[in-house]
Amino acid sequence: MVLPLLTRIDHVGIACRDLRKTIDLYRETFGLGVLTLEVNEEQGVREAMLAVGPGADVAAGRPGYVQLLEPLGPDTPVGKFLARRGEGIHHIGYGVADIKAALAAIGGTGVRLIDERPRHGSMGASIAFLHPADVGGVLTELVQFHRIENSEGSAKPLK
Amino acid sequence: MVLPLLTRIDHVGIACRDLRKTIDLYRETFGLGVLTLEVNEEQGVREAMLAVGPGADVAAGRPGYVQLLEPLGPDTPVGKFLARRGEGIHHIGYGVADIKAALAAIGGTGVRLIDERPRHGSMGASIAFLHPADVGGVLTELVQFHRIENSEGSAKPLK
Repeated sequence: MVLPLLTRIDHVGIACRDLRKTIDLYRETFGLGVLTLEVNEEQGVREAMLAVGPGADVAAGRPGYVQLLEPLGPDTPVGKFLARRGEGIHHIGYGVADIKAALAAIGGTGVRLIDERPRHGSMGASIAFLHPADVGGVLTELVQFHRIENSEGSAKPLK
Repeated sequence: MVLPLLTRIDHVGIACRDLRKTIDLYRETFGLGVLTLEVNEEQGVREAMLAVGPGADVAAGRPGYVQLLEPLGPDTPVGKFLARRGEGIHHIGYGVADIKAALAAIGGTGVRLIDERPRHGSMGASIAFLHPADVGGVLTELVQFHRIENSEGSAKPLK
């Protein structure tokens, strides 16, 4: 295992019923601005990334983010989460330097991987989720950020 | 309001039933080590702070943390959370430069403050919680870190 396996707290994923209202709440309460708005059909969410702080994490090239998630429908994972738990924190995302190596190392410890292979996440990152039942009830996401020149993801800008 | 009001994601607070087991899980799965172990009687928790990454946030002087929280009893806030929701993410903590100014600014937007005045948190920080009902269901903590020379908190090292 290459250490540190987790390089940073990348983001906190927050489930909400109304993305626009929740964006307004975070702007009015904390002064956080929206960096990107995307629809991720694969994950069934409309989402906003809000940067926390002055983008201080020079090493990784990213600040921390609040990721606001509104489900595209009730039968999506976030839609089911809202029905079961209500609005609130949905998952935590950690930065990794090499997501394939990280998945191999973590899978090797016996933790079940929701995603055996990385898929496309916010802002062109490669992401993968770990099974919350094997991480103390925490839905845990790994995020490998790619520099802008490599960041062609499947997520589309929100109209 | 001084912007950015939130300087960074300070930590994710995770409720667990067995602190030692959960520390082992995070070490074995992610290679995270324990930085501090404390009992905070006021908050009714036994807790561990695990540093994420190489301590990269030079500006604020702190890396991000995973904060593992085991309740001291069933009638504590974390004990009730475990009974209601099970193990998982309990709250998110953001760094602020001036916690009193931040509380005044946030309180002024109409968000209810659980703590009108800062109290002692992990590793000598000053902390305050905001009411989750006014922050989209998210129990939100503000954290002002004090440099080591000012870091005499009420939390005691865990024996």
